[in-house]
Amino acid sequence: MKAHVYVSLKKTVLDPQGKTIQGALKKMGYQGLGDVRQGKFFEIALNGGLTKEQATAEVEKMAREVLTNPVIEEFRFTVEE
Amino acid sequence: MKAHVYVSLKKTVLDPQGKTIQGALKKMGYQGLGDVRQGKFFEIALNGGLTKEQATAEVEKMAREVLTNPVIEEFRFTVEE
Repeated sequence: MKAHVYVSLKKTVLDPQGKTIQGALKKMGYQGLGDVRQGKFFEIALNGGLTKEQATAEVEKMAREVLTNPVIEEFRFTVEE
Repeated sequence: MKAHVYVSLKKTVLDPQGKTIQGALKKMGYQGLGDVRQGKFFEIALNGGLTKEQATAEVEKMAREVLTNPVIEEFRFTVEE
């Protein structure tokens, strides 16, 4: 099984890195550009020993407790067979 | 329209950051953990002026020429209405 955890800054938190990328892309002439925000993701391989329910619970716990800073970040995740 | 660009290290490139996260998670007792790899993503808002084809072309160009280092990274992207 494979899990993907996507961590991004909360909508209310400023993203200076994204703003810089947006500015650079605009200067380079890319068209139709609105807001740019950057985030990170984790690709987690899971061993066969877990059921999908167990895996989902483990990944949710990992994401909530370790991979995300709950003060400024939020996460979503997917678990695939 | 909204585009998501996901950039990750090529499979053949070592990911020490991912390895560190994997080690930490294992030490903390999370179960069923295999490989962990980290990547980044960009959430790009696109103005209404572009058709979906134009937007896809712009985003693909951006991802290939600016957001990815083709030597060690690869990307995939999605464009949604």
